[in-house]
Amino acid sequence: MLRDKNGLSPTNQFVCALILASLLMTILRTEVTVYAGREHLFLIADLMLTGLLAVEYGLRLWVCTENPAYRSRLAYALTPATLIDLLAVLLILFSPLGNQGFLLRLARLARILRLAKLGRFSLAFNAVTQAVGRRAYELWLSLVFSAALLLVSSAFLYLIEGGIQPEAFGSIPRAMWWSVATLTTVGYGDVYPVTAVGRFFGALTAIIGIGLIAMPTGILASAFSEAFQERCLRNSAGADEPMNPPAE
Amino acid sequence: MLRDKNGLSPTNQFVCALILASLLMTILRTEVTVYAGREHLFLIADLMLTGLLAVEYGLRLWVCTENPAYRSRLAYALTPATLIDLLAVLLILFSPLGNQGFLLRLARLARILRLAKLGRFSLAFNAVTQAVGRRAYELWLSLVFSAALLLVSSAFLYLIEGGIQPEAFGSIPRAMWWSVATLTTVGYGDVYPVTAVGRFFGALTAIIGIGLIAMPTGILASAFSEAFQERCLRNSAGADEPMNPPAE
Amino acid sequence: MLRDKNGLSPTNQFVCALILASLLMTILRTEVTVYAGREHLFLIADLMLTGLLAVEYGLRLWVCTENPAYRSRLAYALTPATLIDLLAVLLILFSPLGNQGFLLRLARLARILRLAKLGRFSLAFNAVTQAVGRRAYELWLSLVFSAALLLVSSAFLYLIEGGIQPEAFGSIPRAMWWSVATLTTVGYGDVYPVTAVGRFFGALTAIIGIGLIAMPTGILASAFSEAFQERCLRNSAGADEPMNPPAE
Amino acid sequence: MLRDKNGLSPTNQFVCALILASLLMTILRTEVTVYAGREHLFLIADLMLTGLLAVEYGLRLWVCTENPAYRSRLAYALTPATLIDLLAVLLILFSPLGNQGFLLRLARLARILRLAKLGRFSLAFNAVTQAVGRRAYELWLSLVFSAALLLVSSAFLYLIEGGIQPEAFGSIPRAMWWSVATLTTVGYGDVYPVTAVGRFFGALTAIIGIGLIAMPTGILASAFSEAFQERCLRNSAGADEPMNPPAE
Repeated sequence: MLRDKNGLSPTNQFVCALILASLLMTILRTEVTVYAGREHLFLIADLMLTGLLAVEYGLRLWVCTENPAYRSRLAYALTPATLIDLLAVLLILFSPLGNQGFLLRLARLARILRLAKLGRFSLAFNAVTQAVGRRAYELWLSLVFSAALLLVSSAFLYLIEGGIQPEAFGSIPRAMWWSVATLTTVGYGDVYPVTAVGRFFGALTAIIGIGLIAMPTGILASAFSEAFQERCLRNSAGADEPMNPPAE
Repeated sequence: MLRDKNGLSPTNQFVCALILASLLMTILRTEVTVYAGREHLFLIADLMLTGLLAVEYGLRLWVCTENPAYRSRLAYALTPATLIDLLAVLLILFSPLGNQGFLLRLARLARILRLAKLGRFSLAFNAVTQAVGRRAYELWLSLVFSAALLLVSSAFLYLIEGGIQPEAFGSIPRAMWWSVATLTTVGYGDVYPVTAVGRFFGALTAIIGIGLIAMPTGILASAFSEAFQERCLRNSAGADEPMNPPAE
Repeated sequence: MLRDKNGLSPTNQFVCALILASLLMTILRTEVTVYAGREHLFLIADLMLTGLLAVEYGLRLWVCTENPAYRSRLAYALTPATLIDLLAVLLILFSPLGNQGFLLRLARLARILRLAKLGRFSLAFNAVTQAVGRRAYELWLSLVFSAALLLVSSAFLYLIEGGIQPEAFGSIPRAMWWSVATLTTVGYGDVYPVTAVGRFFGALTAIIGIGLIAMPTGILASAFSEAFQERCLRNSAGADEPMNPPAE
Repeated sequence: MLRDKNGLSPTNQFVCALILASLLMTILRTEVTVYAGREHLFLIADLMLTGLLAVEYGLRLWVCTENPAYRSRLAYALTPATLIDLLAVLLILFSPLGNQGFLLRLARLARILRLAKLGRFSLAFNAVTQAVGRRAYELWLSLVFSAALLLVSSAFLYLIEGGIQPEAFGSIPRAMWWSVATLTTVGYGDVYPVTAVGRFFGALTAIIGIGLIAMPTGILASAFSEAFQERCLRNSAGADEPMNPPAE
């Protein structure tokens, strides 16, 4: 009923905002130039956010019995997601000044991602996961190809440059760091081949890397297209059923 | 009537050229090795360009009443775009030597972009914006995924390398700079993990980054394809309507 | 019969795991900080893995006559893949401490890749290779374009920056190292133009490089889509044949 | 008649090989560590290659009258491509030791590219150029967007980091070098923002840069798909015409 254009209910939007604010504070607490001297501001904000999230936790526990998926309040309270919420709230209430519950606080991110499945995003979420799922084998295969290429190019660079740059290419695991940076076209430039032969194989690796990027992109593109095609196919084969509106 | 093959009228082409020249001069003025010693050339060129743009501004104000969208000359003169034009002209006329109206001058760029909607570009413009708009949720979703991954990879690198490289990974916001550079495959190489564990997670981030590039690309590709498909669908379903010419 | 959800028989999965373990050990042996002091662990693990692979080799040789593709046990034993297996086993048994058979051990990777053709991956494998094969000429053509662009941009940078940075741009082959890194968007940053003209052409190269990445990606995407389209075409043309299940 | 599987006649293949050898020698001549001490080998190879290309030039001039496109031998000899061939031959014959005709020699590359239009490549060549041509406006538009983004991000970084890093961001043209490297995801790492605000806008630029890569890729992918779709459309609309073989 009461949904904005994103299709998230006002309550979910508010909870979303609370968690985002909580995440932002967890992130900023780690930066000493921001945190130092502002400990009290962070403490107050943390307690306020945690208080609101505690209330929200209580309310959810109260109404969870309405949802037939949960047999009892305890069953709901023991689901991993709800447990994380409780632990995060308790941790902040009992050690508000520290950032000890660092990872636990970040785990709240999962709840944001779950909210992304609600509202109008759910259609998009399904479209994306369905497309990825439908081509799971093709995508795994391009990962297998990439892994093989990673191994081969690392082995070559290890053989060619291992003696000259032992720090960077002195073993296959070391050469792999260069190889990943090259195949993904990240190219930090902290390590790179210096001999002519090494550069030749390095260039080859970079060029083949383009193919490894093009492959999953092409696979995903065709998977996204397919969803619409099927609709098209269904319509043109059995022409009597009513015309569906276009995908989105 | 009088349109070249780009579909822009000669007047619009001339104005486009004037603004491009004005933009180019604003850019070059910031480079001291070009500007120093050539202040007079820049002054003359600026005054000439501004004079022409002032005339064009006057003419547009004169004929705007022909367009039923504007009730009066004042209403037209107060639209943001027209206001920017006036302010840029006034600013250059009253302080021709300085580059004070720097941002205002650059704001003229907006007018070029508006001209891109005219002529034959309008079809392309509509195709692009429609494709992006139609998959807005999918694109937002891949942005949400990217943000989550950015946060997770920054948190990991902060935990792993924060103690060793406090300058680069000493907080999550700092680690995010590395994380963005890696996920987008830019890879400046100013900061990078140095420990084995850090490099393992760094490599993982780079590989997952490929997926984050492949996802919006695939989504956009399918959206562009869809525009044509729909036409195909329409034709094959109701075969009586006349065959449309191919998309472009 | 006895196949898990990947479609690989338990035997193939076990062999796959053995070879992966063997590859991992070959890789780790090259890293002195891992290998030094653990020679005996590596020796024991190597002998165990090799023993199992030797048994597997024997069993395969025993049952190969069941497969009508091989006339005799000798014919099977002399196929390159089986020869590699035998050589790798013999090499490890006779010089277990060294890493001499380095490349031969890595050649076992080929067997993993062959296993990737089995089970449910075979459909994906066919889809990928068919898509690449079907657009082989387009992909070669984009490689020819890339090579031409590589040559032209290297020649320009050699002419412009050759005198200033002789180490990096002093000849076309040297400039090519920069050119490959730029066109593939790897961008190590070990060499880069420093003059204004050089940077202009460098920027141009980087921008055109985007096109060179977009081209094969687009070609592959359309090839993957096509496989599904053909099915669609077949169904809509001859509508009497039964509806096939969607591609995957 | 006498065509190999690439569809190039043996003569064209031989000429192709000659020109490739000539290009390779022109490239290697620039590298002093290869050329020094081998001047005579290069001289002999150059004269042999040039001799063969001179013969080929003569033969082409002889038979060109068979082709109705050329009225006379002189008309053929004065076409730019033929003129380049003649000049390159003359230049090498009269100054065989130097690399003076450097650019002219490289211009022979054009002939290789022309040969790429022959044989089975011609279909691929048409498919690629047609796809690019059909979406010319969309591709130009994404270039216009990119140029605007380039300008805006350069202006921001100039304002933010211009004072701190005058060498790298002291003017918009200087900041553009960083901006191009970031938007194309090349990321040399020779210049990068160091302030928090600068890094925020830098990260934003890198993320938007992904979109600028995704856009032309998606446009090209849909253009390549479209070629096949049209065929599909034609078949399903007028079902009486015979089934065409699939695209390639």
